Amino acid sequence: MKIFEEIESEVQSYARSFPRVFHRAKGEFLYDEDGNEYIDFLAGAGTLNYGHNNPVFKEKLLEYIHSDGITHGLDLHTRAKGEFLEAFNEIILKPRKLEYMMQFTGPTGTNAVEAALKLARNVTGRENVISFTNGFHGVSLGSLATTGNSHHRGAAGVSLSGSSRMPFDGYLGEDVDTTAYLDKVLSDSSSGVDLPAAVIAETVQGEGGINAASFDWLRNLEAVCRKHDVLLIVDDIQAGCGRSGTFFSFEEAGISPDIVTLSKSLGGYGLPFAVVLIRPDLDQWKPGEHNGTFRGNNFAFVTATAALNEYWTNDEFAKNIRKKGDYIAKRLDQFVEKYGEGNFNTCGRGMFRGINCVNGDIAGKITHSAFGKGLIIETSGADDQVVKILCPLVISEENLKRGMDILEQAIAEVCDKEDFIPETVDYFEDDYQTDVGVKQAS
Amino acid sequence: MKIFEEIESEVQSYARSFPRVFHRAKGEFLYDEDGNEYIDFLAGAGTLNYGHNNPVFKEKLLEYIHSDGITHGLDLHTRAKGEFLEAFNEIILKPRKLEYMMQFTGPTGTNAVEAALKLARNVTGRENVISFTNGFHGVSLGSLATTGNSHHRGAAGVSLSGSSRMPFDGYLGEDVDTTAYLDKVLSDSSSGVDLPAAVIAETVQGEGGINAASFDWLRNLEAVCRKHDVLLIVDDIQAGCGRSGTFFSFEEAGISPDIVTLSKSLGGYGLPFAVVLIRPDLDQWKPGEHNGTFRGNNFAFVTATAALNEYWTNDEFAKNIRKKGDYIAKRLDQFVEKYGEGNFNTCGRGMFRGINCVNGDIAGKITHSAFGKGLIIETSGADDQVVKILCPLVISEENLKRGMDILEQAIAEVCDKEDFIPETVDYFEDDYQTDVGVKQAS
Amino acid sequence: MKIFEEIESEVQSYARSFPRVFHRAKGEFLYDEDGNEYIDFLAGAGTLNYGHNNPVFKEKLLEYIHSDGITHGLDLHTRAKGEFLEAFNEIILKPRKLEYMMQFTGPTGTNAVEAALKLARNVTGRENVISFTNGFHGVSLGSLATTGNSHHRGAAGVSLSGSSRMPFDGYLGEDVDTTAYLDKVLSDSSSGVDLPAAVIAETVQGEGGINAASFDWLRNLEAVCRKHDVLLIVDDIQAGCGRSGTFFSFEEAGISPDIVTLSKSLGGYGLPFAVVLIRPDLDQWKPGEHNGTFRGNNFAFVTATAALNEYWTNDEFAKNIRKKGDYIAKRLDQFVEKYGEGNFNTCGRGMFRGINCVNGDIAGKITHSAFGKGLIIETSGADDQVVKILCPLVISEENLKRGMDILEQAIAEVCDKEDFIPETVDYFEDDYQTDVGVKQAS
Amino acid sequence: MKIFEEIESEVQSYARSFPRVFHRAKGEFLYDEDGNEYIDFLAGAGTLNYGHNNPVFKEKLLEYIHSDGITHGLDLHTRAKGEFLEAFNEIILKPRKLEYMMQFTGPTGTNAVEAALKLARNVTGRENVISFTNGFHGVSLGSLATTGNSHHRGAAGVSLSGSSRMPFDGYLGEDVDTTAYLDKVLSDSSSGVDLPAAVIAETVQGEGGINAASFDWLRNLEAVCRKHDVLLIVDDIQAGCGRSGTFFSFEEAGISPDIVTLSKSLGGYGLPFAVVLIRPDLDQWKPGEHNGTFRGNNFAFVTATAALNEYWTNDEFAKNIRKKGDYIAKRLDQFVEKYGEGNFNTCGRGMFRGINCVNGDIAGKITHSAFGKGLIIETSGADDQVVKILCPLVISEENLKRGMDILEQAIAEVCDKEDFIPETVDYFEDDYQTDVGVKQAS
Repeated sequence: MKIFEEIESEVQSYARSFPRVFHRAKGEFLYDEDGNEYIDFLAGAGTLNYGHNNPVFKEKLLEYIHSDGITHGLDLHTRAKGEFLEAFNEIILKPRKLEYMMQFTGPTGTNAVEAALKLARNVTGRENVISFTNGFHGVSLGSLATTGNSHHRGAAGVSLSGSSRMPFDGYLGEDVDTTAYLDKVLSDSSSGVDLPAAVIAETVQGEGGINAASFDWLRNLEAVCRKHDVLLIVDDIQAGCGRSGTFFSFEEAGISPDIVTLSKSLGGYGLPFAVVLIRPDLDQWKPGEHNGTFRGNNFAFVTATAALNEYWTNDEFAKNIRKKGDYIAKRLDQFVEKYGEGNFNTCGRGMFRGINCVNGDIAGKITHSAFGKGLIIETSGADDQVVKILCPLVISEENLKRGMDILEQAIAEVCDKEDFIPETVDYFEDDYQTDVGVKQAS
Repeated sequence: MKIFEEIESEVQSYARSFPRVFHRAKGEFLYDEDGNEYIDFLAGAGTLNYGHNNPVFKEKLLEYIHSDGITHGLDLHTRAKGEFLEAFNEIILKPRKLEYMMQFTGPTGTNAVEAALKLARNVTGRENVISFTNGFHGVSLGSLATTGNSHHRGAAGVSLSGSSRMPFDGYLGEDVDTTAYLDKVLSDSSSGVDLPAAVIAETVQGEGGINAASFDWLRNLEAVCRKHDVLLIVDDIQAGCGRSGTFFSFEEAGISPDIVTLSKSLGGYGLPFAVVLIRPDLDQWKPGEHNGTFRGNNFAFVTATAALNEYWTNDEFAKNIRKKGDYIAKRLDQFVEKYGEGNFNTCGRGMFRGINCVNGDIAGKITHSAFGKGLIIETSGADDQVVKILCPLVISEENLKRGMDILEQAIAEVCDKEDFIPETVDYFEDDYQTDVGVKQAS
Repeated sequence: MKIFEEIESEVQSYARSFPRVFHRAKGEFLYDEDGNEYIDFLAGAGTLNYGHNNPVFKEKLLEYIHSDGITHGLDLHTRAKGEFLEAFNEIILKPRKLEYMMQFTGPTGTNAVEAALKLARNVTGRENVISFTNGFHGVSLGSLATTGNSHHRGAAGVSLSGSSRMPFDGYLGEDVDTTAYLDKVLSDSSSGVDLPAAVIAETVQGEGGINAASFDWLRNLEAVCRKHDVLLIVDDIQAGCGRSGTFFSFEEAGISPDIVTLSKSLGGYGLPFAVVLIRPDLDQWKPGEHNGTFRGNNFAFVTATAALNEYWTNDEFAKNIRKKGDYIAKRLDQFVEKYGEGNFNTCGRGMFRGINCVNGDIAGKITHSAFGKGLIIETSGADDQVVKILCPLVISEENLKRGMDILEQAIAEVCDKEDFIPETVDYFEDDYQTDVGVKQAS
Repeated sequence: MKIFEEIESEVQSYARSFPRVFHRAKGEFLYDEDGNEYIDFLAGAGTLNYGHNNPVFKEKLLEYIHSDGITHGLDLHTRAKGEFLEAFNEIILKPRKLEYMMQFTGPTGTNAVEAALKLARNVTGRENVISFTNGFHGVSLGSLATTGNSHHRGAAGVSLSGSSRMPFDGYLGEDVDTTAYLDKVLSDSSSGVDLPAAVIAETVQGEGGINAASFDWLRNLEAVCRKHDVLLIVDDIQAGCGRSGTFFSFEEAGISPDIVTLSKSLGGYGLPFAVVLIRPDLDQWKPGEHNGTFRGNNFAFVTATAALNEYWTNDEFAKNIRKKGDYIAKRLDQFVEKYGEGNFNTCGRGMFRGINCVNGDIAGKITHSAFGKGLIIETSGADDQVVKILCPLVISEENLKRGMDILEQAIAEVCDKEDFIPETVDYFEDDYQTDVGVKQAS
C-alpha cells in the first residue's frame, strides 16, 4: 500500500472507498492480496457487464496475442477491426434495422462524446448543445460542458460554454413534461436558448442518480428534435450494451438517435474502447479531423467481437437481464418498504437500478458496511444519495441473491434494524443458470 | 476491405495512406493479409518505441492474463499498478533526482493533457495557458485549444478559448529569442496576454514538423516561467520514453518541469495508457475531480513495468538510441546534400527526425513511393512537408539501413534522380546489435 | 431622404417603419419636415417618459449651456453631478429607505448592464449569471449573453457564454412557479447550472413582449437569491423611472435588489445617460476598473435633476401614471373583447402595456395602419406580435384618448371591421390635466 | 464634495487625481467652484479637440434646443442627422476619395468597437480578431477582449475570448517587423492563430503609452490583411478627428481601412457620439441587428456638423495642428535632454504626444505637481509611465507655451532641479493665432 500513498496522486477516488490491493478477478468476484473474496456490484462502473476476465473472451484474446496479431495500429485496417465491424453489423445493427457508420475514437467514453459533439456542431453549423440536469458525459472540456456535476465542472478552471441545460424527465415533477418546455424554448425566437446542433441525453442517468427516462419522454424528445431539425445524441456508454435490458437502451422506446456513443462494456473484457455510431448522411468527417493515438484498440476488437458472438446472437441474454433486473427491483421495493421509514425509493431499469436513501450520509454508511461484508457497491447522484446496483449482467442467480442479502443486511444495520433476517423467498420463477458466473476463486 | 468502406466512418486517416488490411506485427515489421512485409517507420506515431509485440513484454502480459490478473479496476489499487509505481520510481525518477506524484488519467494522451491543464488552472487560479506555434496536444476541446493545427481546430465547432499562442523556438528566425518575447508580454501589464497558469510545450514538436527546441531555449523558457511564477508543463507524450535520446526529452536541457504528460510508448506494448507527473506540492486534486472509466489500464501497467525493467535499468538503451539517431541524422544530411536542390533540410533530435521537403506535395509523393517499396512512413508539419522518421527504437541496425535505403530511393525517384545507387558506407562505428529487431516474419 | 439611403448603414430599424424626416418634437408630438404631426406612442422606446423637449428641463438646460457649465468632464466632480447626486438621494433613495452607491457608466443602458455584471462577478468570484427567457439587456457582448433575442444573439459572431437561461414568470404555464425550478437547480449540485454570481431580471420585459412578472414571483425570486447567496440585479432601464407606476418598478413588490441599472428616461430629456445603483458593501470597484469617455453626461445631470424636482417630490405624478395606466388597460381589454376573435390578449402594468395580437403579421399591419393615421407605435415580442403602448407618461388625457382611438381604428381595420365607431365613453373618473402635454404644434 | 464620497461609487478615477468640484469650462480652461483656473492638457481624454464649450458650436446647439429640434429620435431620420451625413460626406469623405457607409451606434466608443467587431465576424464568418499589445478599445466585454490592459481585463469576471494578440510596431525591438510575424502566423496552417475576421489597430496607441506606429508598418499591416483576405479595422476614436495631424490618423500612411471607428471628438462639443464607417460592400447588417436606445445623438449631430464646417473645409486647421505638434515635440525633446538622466524619451505624433518617464512613480509625481500649478495632465501606458500631452487642438499659442512651461517646472521639480528657469525661446516661427483659445475666464 505504501507506494500508492507515496506517489499516486490525491485524485484517487474508488481506492479510498475500497482500500485494498486487488490482484485477481473472475466473473462477479474480486480478490485482494490477502485472499479475500468480494462480490462486485460495481463492475467497473458498468464496464464489466460480462464479468471480470470472461473465460470465453480470455481464450480469444490469448490466442490473438500469441499469434502476434496487431496490437497497436493507429486507424489502419486490421483483420481484428474488420471482424468486429462485420459482427457488429450482422449481430447488432441489421437485426434492429439500424444503419450507422462507426467511428473509432480515442478509447475513452469522453473522447467518443467529444467526437459526437464536434460532428453535430460541424454538420449543423450550430454551436449550442442541449444537455440535461444530472447528466454525465465525461470530464474532458468538451464533454464536461454537458456534464451536470459541479464537483467535476468546478475543476475545469475555465468557462464551460456551448451547452444549455434543460430539465430531465421528472425534474419539474410528474405533471410537467419537460420536452414541452424544450419545444417551447426552441420555438421561441427570444427564449435565449440558441437553436442547438444537438440534444445529448442518457436514457438512464448513471452518475446522476439512476434516473430512468420514461419511453414516452424519449419519444417526445425525439419528436421535438425532429420538429426543430436538431440532432439527437444518445450517450449509451453506461446504459447500453445490455445494462438496461436490451443492447441499446433506447430500443424499447422505439427511437432512432442520429448519433450514439458506446464505450464501457462494449469491449467486453474491460479494455479501453469507445465508438461513435453516426447516421450515414451525417458522416461528414474530413480525414483525421478527430484523431488520437489509441483509436481502435485491437485487443478490444477481439474481445468485443467475442462478446457479440457469445451473448447477442439471440434473445436469451437480454431475457436473462430482464429477469434478474426484475428480481433486483423486487428486492429493492421490499427494502423501501422495510427500511428508511418511507423515505427511501427505488429507481432505474433492467439491471441498472438503485435505492435512493435520501442523503449521502446514509447511502455512504450502507456501502461502507456492505464492503465490510464482502460486497463492493457504490453510490451515485448529486449527493451520493443513491446506492447503485451495477453487478455484472452474467452474475449467477445465487451470487446475485448473496449480494442482495448483504446489501439488505447493510441497510438494516444502518437503519438500526440489526436483528433482521434476510428474506429467503425465491424471486426467480424458474431455475436460472448463468454460464459465466463463477462462485468462488479457483 | 469492403466492410471498412461500408461502415467505418470517413474520419479514417492513416488507413487512406496505407490501404491494406494488416493482421500481424513483430518488432519493426507489419504484415498484411496477403503476407507482405513492411518496415515500420511510423511505429504507431511514436507509440511503438519498443517495436510491435515486443517478446519480453508479451511474455509478461500472457502470464498476467492467464492468471486472471485484474483487467479493469477503475482506480482501485492493484498489484500491477503497485509494481509499476515502484518500478517507475526506482528506475526512472530516483536516478534522475526527480520527485513527482503520478496521476493515471483516461488512457489517451489528450486526456492527460486535459488533466494537466485543469490542475495548473486550479492550483494557480488563472485561466490562460501559453501554447506554441505548431504545437500539438490532442483534439478533445481542452487540449485542442492549445493545439496549433487548423485542420483540427476547425473541427471544434465552438470557440477554443483559454490559451494564448507564442512563437516556438526559431519561429521568428534565428536571431530572435522567443522566450524574451514571452518574458516581455508577461512583464507588461497591458500586453493583453493574461498572466497564465502555465506554459505547455513539447521539446520536439512531432506533428508540428519535428521542430526541436534548443536546450538553451528550454532553459530560458523555464527561467521565464520561474520568474513569473508560471507552471511549466512539458508534454512528453511523443518525445518522451527515449525517443529523443533520453527517457525524458528534457533531461539534457537540465530543466525540471512542474508537470509532465506521458503516454504513447509508456505502456510499452502499444496499449492505451497515459499519466501525468505532478510536482508533489501541486498535487491538489480533490478525490475524483478528474476521472474516467479506463484510468489505469492494468495490462499496460504490466507491459510498462516490463519495459522499464528491460530497457531503462542502465544507460545502454539510451546510448543505442543516440547512436542510431546519429546514423539517421547523417543519412538525412546526405539526402539534403544530394536531393532537393538545396531546398530540403533536416530537423529533430535522437531518433525523432525528419527531412523537410519544402512542400506537402513532394513529401507525400516520397512517402507514397516508399510505401510501394515496403516502407511505412508518414509526413508531418503544417503542410505535411516533413517526412518523419519514427521507427521503433529497437530496430536492428540492418533494418534501419534498409529503411533508410528505401527512403533514399523514394526521394531520388520523386526528385527525378532515379538512376542513383544508395550509398553503402557504414555509418555505424561498431557492430550494433539489437535484441528485439526481428528481420523477418517467423 | 437621399443622403440616408446613400450613406447610412443598412442597420437602420425604426427609420424603416416610420420613413419620414423628423425635425421637431414637443411633449407627445413629433413633426416631420412636411409639417405633419404624429402622436408618439413609442417615446424613444421608453426614453421620453417626460415627453419630448420638456419645457421645464429645457429651460434648465439652456441656462446651463449659456453659462458654460461643464459639458464633458470624464468622471471629474462637477457641480451638476453633485446636484444630481443630492437630488437622487433626497428625492428617490431616502424616502424609499434605499441605500445605494451610484456608478456613472458609459451613457448607454448596455454599458450599465456590462458594469453590473462585471461587478457581480468580481464580488462573488463566480462567472455564471442567470437570465430569463425573453429578457433584453442590450447588445454589447457582455449584455448580449443575457439577452434572449435570437436576431441580436445571432449577430454576435462569437460564443455568448457566462449566462444560464431560466423561464420567466408564466413561461411554463400558470401552474408552474419558475422560481421553484430556479431554487431546485441551485440546490442541486449536479443540475449543471453553475452557482451564479447574480440573477438579472426585468420586472416587466419590454422587448420580450411586455411580460409583467407578478409581485409574488419577484418576491420569490428575491428569496431564492437570498437563500443561495446570489445577487439580484434588476434591470430597470425600461420599466423604471415611473413607467410601471412607481419610480422603481420593483417598489410595490417590496423587494430590495442588490444592484439596479437605470437609463433611458433617467436623463429626462432624452440625453444619453446610464447609472448602476450598488448596495454599498458591494461597491468594491477599483479606481477606473470600468471606465468610458462619456461616463457622466453633464447635460443629462442637469435635466435628470430637473426631472426629479419636477415630478418626484410628491406622489402626484405616480398617481397620474397609474390612472392613465388603468385607462389604457381598460381600452385594451375592450379591444381584446371586440377584435381578434378571442385570440388577442393584454399584458403589462402601469403605462407599460401591450396587446398581444398572436402574430407579428397582424401586429405589424396594425402599427403600419396607425402610422398612416398619425400615430407612431411599435411592436415587441419574439415574433413582434405585441403592439406596445409606450406613450410619454406626461401625455394629456385628450391625446391619450386620441392615440387609443387611432389604435382602435387601426386594429379594427386590420381585423376587417372598418365600419366601427370608437367608443367615446370617458374612462377617466375625474378631470385629469397634464401640464406638459402639448396638443398641437405652436 | 461630501455627496461624492457618500454615494458615488469607488470606481471614480480622474476625480481622484484632480479632487476639485469643477463647474465651468471654456476653450482650454477648466474652472473649479473656488474660481481656480486650470489649463486642460487632458481635454476629456481626447474628446475636446475643439476645446470646452466651443462658442461656434454652442451657438448652433442653443439654437437647435430653442427651436425644439428632435433631441431623442432613436434611429429615425432627422434633419440634424441628414445635415451631418451631408457634411461628413462632402467635407471629409469625398475630398479624401473615401467611400464608407456610416453606422450610428450607441454613443460610446466601446459600442462602436463592438459593432465593428460584430460586423467583421458576421461578414467573414470567422471569429478570431487580431489585436495588439498595449491596445485599448474599450471595456464592454466584446471590446475588452481586444484591449490589452490587465487592470481592465481583470475586471471582466469571465473569459475574454475571440481575440489573438500580436506585437505592435516596435514591440520586439527596432529590427523586427512585427507585421512579418503576423504574415507568418496567418500563412502557417498550424500556427494556432486562427484566420481572423479582422485586425483591429490604433495608429497611435493612446492608453497604451502614446505609441505611434510608423507609416511603413501601417502599410505593411494593410498589405498583410489584403493578402489573407482579413479586414482591417482602424480604431480612430482617440487618434482621429485631427489629433494626430490629419482628420483620419491613417491618411498620411495612405491606407484604406475596411472599417473605421470614430467617437470622442467627433461630436465636437464633448457630447456622447460614436460611429462606425463601413466599406459599402461590407454593410451587410440586417435591420436593427446592432441597436441601442441612444444611437444617433441629435445634439451631437448639430455640434459635429458645426465642427466639420468650422475646421475642416480647408487645410488650415490641420496645418496648425502639425505646427503646434512640432512645438510640443521640440519642447519634449528638450525635456528629455535636460531631465531624467538620459532615461526619458518622447513618443507620439501630431498633438498626440508624450514623454516616457520610465516609471509610473515619476510620471505620477510630475502630473501631481503640474496640477498644483494649474495644469490638468494625465499619464498613460502599462505602468502609467508616460505623461501625455493631450491639449485641445485649438489651444492658443500662448496657453500651449504656458502649459508646457508648467509641465517643465513640474518635471524639473520631480527631477530635483528646482532652480531651473523655463526656456523662453519661441519655437513658433510665425505669429500663430487661434480663434478659439480663451485665455482667461470672463
